[in-house]
Amino acid sequence: MQDILKECVKIGKQVAELGLVATYIPELEKGNKKDVGIAIMDLEGQFYGEGVYLKEFTLQSITKVIALLLALEDKGKEEVFKHVHMEPTGDPFNSIMSFEVKNPEKPFNPMINAGAMVVTSLIRGETKEEKIKRILAFYELLRGKEGATYDEKVYRSEKATGDRNRSLAYFMKSTGIMQGDTDEILDLYFMQCSILGNCKDIATIGAILASNGIHPLTKARVIKKENARLVKTVMTTCGMYDASGEFAVSCGIPAKSGVGGGILGAVPGVFGVCTFGPSLDKKGNSIAGIKMMEYLSKKLDLSIF
Amino acid sequence: MQDILKECVKIGKQVAELGLVATYIPELEKGNKKDVGIAIMDLEGQFYGEGVYLKEFTLQSITKVIALLLALEDKGKEEVFKHVHMEPTGDPFNSIMSFEVKNPEKPFNPMINAGAMVVTSLIRGETKEEKIKRILAFYELLRGKEGATYDEKVYRSEKATGDRNRSLAYFMKSTGIMQGDTDEILDLYFMQCSILGNCKDIATIGAILASNGIHPLTKARVIKKENARLVKTVMTTCGMYDASGEFAVSCGIPAKSGVGGGILGAVPGVFGVCTFGPSLDKKGNSIAGIKMMEYLSKKLDLSIF
Amino acid sequence: MQDILKECVKIGKQVAELGLVATYIPELEKGNKKDVGIAIMDLEGQFYGEGVYLKEFTLQSITKVIALLLALEDKGKEEVFKHVHMEPTGDPFNSIMSFEVKNPEKPFNPMINAGAMVVTSLIRGETKEEKIKRILAFYELLRGKEGATYDEKVYRSEKATGDRNRSLAYFMKSTGIMQGDTDEILDLYFMQCSILGNCKDIATIGAILASNGIHPLTKARVIKKENARLVKTVMTTCGMYDASGEFAVSCGIPAKSGVGGGILGAVPGVFGVCTFGPSLDKKGNSIAGIKMMEYLSKKLDLSIF
Amino acid sequence: MQDILKECVKIGKQVAELGLVATYIPELEKGNKKDVGIAIMDLEGQFYGEGVYLKEFTLQSITKVIALLLALEDKGKEEVFKHVHMEPTGDPFNSIMSFEVKNPEKPFNPMINAGAMVVTSLIRGETKEEKIKRILAFYELLRGKEGATYDEKVYRSEKATGDRNRSLAYFMKSTGIMQGDTDEILDLYFMQCSILGNCKDIATIGAILASNGIHPLTKARVIKKENARLVKTVMTTCGMYDASGEFAVSCGIPAKSGVGGGILGAVPGVFGVCTFGPSLDKKGNSIAGIKMMEYLSKKLDLSIF
Repeated sequence: MQDILKECVKIGKQVAELGLVATYIPELEKGNKKDVGIAIMDLEGQFYGEGVYLKEFTLQSITKVIALLLALEDKGKEEVFKHVHMEPTGDPFNSIMSFEVKNPEKPFNPMINAGAMVVTSLIRGETKEEKIKRILAFYELLRGKEGATYDEKVYRSEKATGDRNRSLAYFMKSTGIMQGDTDEILDLYFMQCSILGNCKDIATIGAILASNGIHPLTKARVIKKENARLVKTVMTTCGMYDASGEFAVSCGIPAKSGVGGGILGAVPGVFGVCTFGPSLDKKGNSIAGIKMMEYLSKKLDLSIF
Repeated sequence: MQDILKECVKIGKQVAELGLVATYIPELEKGNKKDVGIAIMDLEGQFYGEGVYLKEFTLQSITKVIALLLALEDKGKEEVFKHVHMEPTGDPFNSIMSFEVKNPEKPFNPMINAGAMVVTSLIRGETKEEKIKRILAFYELLRGKEGATYDEKVYRSEKATGDRNRSLAYFMKSTGIMQGDTDEILDLYFMQCSILGNCKDIATIGAILASNGIHPLTKARVIKKENARLVKTVMTTCGMYDASGEFAVSCGIPAKSGVGGGILGAVPGVFGVCTFGPSLDKKGNSIAGIKMMEYLSKKLDLSIF
Repeated sequence: MQDILKECVKIGKQVAELGLVATYIPELEKGNKKDVGIAIMDLEGQFYGEGVYLKEFTLQSITKVIALLLALEDKGKEEVFKHVHMEPTGDPFNSIMSFEVKNPEKPFNPMINAGAMVVTSLIRGETKEEKIKRILAFYELLRGKEGATYDEKVYRSEKATGDRNRSLAYFMKSTGIMQGDTDEILDLYFMQCSILGNCKDIATIGAILASNGIHPLTKARVIKKENARLVKTVMTTCGMYDASGEFAVSCGIPAKSGVGGGILGAVPGVFGVCTFGPSLDKKGNSIAGIKMMEYLSKKLDLSIF
Repeated sequence: MQDILKECVKIGKQVAELGLVATYIPELEKGNKKDVGIAIMDLEGQFYGEGVYLKEFTLQSITKVIALLLALEDKGKEEVFKHVHMEPTGDPFNSIMSFEVKNPEKPFNPMINAGAMVVTSLIRGETKEEKIKRILAFYELLRGKEGATYDEKVYRSEKATGDRNRSLAYFMKSTGIMQGDTDEILDLYFMQCSILGNCKDIATIGAILASNGIHPLTKARVIKKENARLVKTVMTTCGMYDASGEFAVSCGIPAKSGVGGGILGAVPGVFGVCTFGPSLDKKGNSIAGIKMMEYLSKKLDLSIF
């Protein structure tokens, strides 16, 4: 396995400089295009890492998975999906027009920004502070490591430039799709996107999903089976932005990417995997990450299809 | 003339209760459907009024005309139309989707909410307080009467429920279409919509437009000829929401309506006119107002076409 | 007047080569960019022409005015506007998306392709041949000259490349917006677009509209007053494609352009005018034509606003 | 297994009358709501059927899978996906607006009408007759039974009422997305939708997909492994119209439905399955079919996630 990961990193490095690091959040521009890392945590708790697999990055959209899992544990599937659909969409992740065109009662799915904001609004907690504490505590439980925090600079950068997300949130507020204090939900959403983690942390979360809820290190059930399965399904149909369909064909691994450069993968019954590389393609997915996932999937015949 | 206005009010009252008063702003729900008024100010300063023509109402979208005139006087036509187009649109007044679909560099026209916000952002003034003072002072100059103010309750009601406008404003901020402090511009916009006036005030403004800029009472030039003409043109193509085309056919009078129930009309070379009736049709125009305008136009052959 | 027209042609020639001739119909690519012409017919039947004012061109969208007038004479205003709105739209002339987004019961207005096809479908006649004969005969009546015909090559070219119009027509058929044999209506529409005329012909039609229906040469009433006025209104709000608002501001003359290079103008109570120049701007309007109209409007203070 | 299928049919019958048979094609209105059937073909060629599993129905959108497989065998993956994407879309199956809004170079995926027409246009054959013969022959190969044909009445009904598909096809023709004779492709598409089959036929095709290309009865490879896998992936993300995401969550079985009432399912490595019931839900999927698939998936733990 270690040799395969070495090969992965080699392949990742070959393409890493072809893309661009995210620029819409000034703090993300500082990412080093040459960074490439990969980690695997299998269901027995066996861990493998290569490249910069311990380097921290902001999870960005990968936290959509964490927030969805927490909301599901908090409120149950039925309640959560009263407020968000589970259908893929061909629209961009920050699209607002479908709300006007189709006047839907809820956003398409929890992996686009609109849906993720609604999910965030459902997390239990009296105050914003309590909610972010609960998210961080849940994240610590999943990765099996304390000391979780969000990057203050990235959070401030997100907040300063988040006008499109503000527009989306206020639109949903105006139609009643989203309840609660809009500014507070936005703030929580920006914090959540800025949570820090490394490949090992994320691969561990992938392993929990792969095993339908059992923590690979403690063997304790940390999430319900049906929630784990549901989240893997949503990741497969909606997890890789507008390239979800293509990724499903080329890899066939339930996965969720973030513009921080990470990709969380969960191979059902096999292992969790995380790739990292801050250089992105046009769809917003890590160039090196996609290549490494494709290599891994072909090498080990991991496609679920 | 007085007899014609009496007939107008009679006709207006017959339909006044068929519509609904605006409900999206709670304060507007208090409007009395039975109220009907009309006023005419001719270019010589001769004034005629009937019905509740001295009753105050909030000008709402009629202030889009005042703000546009002030921005034109402040910055000149060229500068203003760098930031907003002058094209009619078939989209609703609060539409956001065209921004995503067409990715335009500026809103369609100054009579839809998006365009009016951009126009408001162009008005000179160091602070929000200075800007609203300048708008009110300009409005006093136009109507020829001091003591202009905005309705504090309606303003607070607009602000409390203005999430769709917030969404629009932040979208324009995110794409660079609108500059400045978004919350301040929104606040100014809500204040501006809540400015109070009666039929006589508005008919006087109509007379200024009708005469291409000369005040009917003082005979002083208060706005530039080209600005008066431009604004009448934009009123004709875009002034009556989604019913602008139909109104142009049935009346042929440059006009601007507001959901407060007022309609400002400017018959070029003839007179200014204002109708009032808070009961609205589905497009958001005063039911009684439209009927009175149609009657007046046919009776006096006022169509510009 | 002759001197003014000479100046117009001079101004038109200065800009004529800045644009592009229409290329979407191969036959139109043959237009000579250097051609510039203008003609005026006043209400007394006095005629003035300069440049290539007798050169024939295909009327293209200018026939939307002729077809609308004929349908109005055939069926009456009420019946026609059961099938098409009279509202301006910010969408392109060949837009189809609003039909899906808004699911309207009728097209926005008779000046966009969808609306013009519906209008064409309303013209009386048992067969396609009878209908085109009636259109040509009506056109002969208006221009006061026999021998009207359509350009066979342009017609075939339109037909061969008219897939977008076919798409529009079948969409309207599928939703019940348009009745009748779709292919036959499309064929008639392509024929109609290819009708030939020169500046004198079109200026004469402009004079009829300007006088609310009286033929300038025979002094006979050829169209109803209310139809003439209605058509001038629709021309003002929708006649110059996506530049109708800007043209209303810069010229203030009810007008309709065609991609063949012609522009029909009707100055109420004054005269009819036609400009020609096959070189088009990005909106599809004749570059030289727009400039000549603007010069003429300013010189003679023709704006209706 | 037989008992499980009996239970399936029982469950299917309970809901069968809650929906509506397809009415947009007059011939389909004749479907009997009480009909419910199910069939399973495992990878060893063992077959199980219950209910009206031998009753013939028109395959409708299920043929999108067959046409895609044939095009892939004919032209290869690379060539096919030059002309169509593999991304899910939240738009309806017959949507045209995204073509205007996004101006894409190809349709979203082969499971929506636009994409299926493009796929159909790629199938080898000199003439329409040769192409439909090749499609039918390929279908015979897959189901392992001769005598394939399409329902002439349904075909004529589709053709007579297919204006929305015509609109889509001409739009794609106008933008160059689809090449070839538009009317011929439409005709072929209507024929293809009208192909007849029963649950056993379709379950056999499902088994081929489930085994990555091996025919369950002859053990011969009939399609390439990568094509089988690719098609299962596209079925998972896009196969159940706007309910694909929800079906993935509730069943987790790669599937394709048709408005004729059939659903084709392929459980990787396990078996092929087909349900039938002409009563449809609002999304166009068989009500009884969905219920039977859900029961089967839970009972046998078939979700791929």
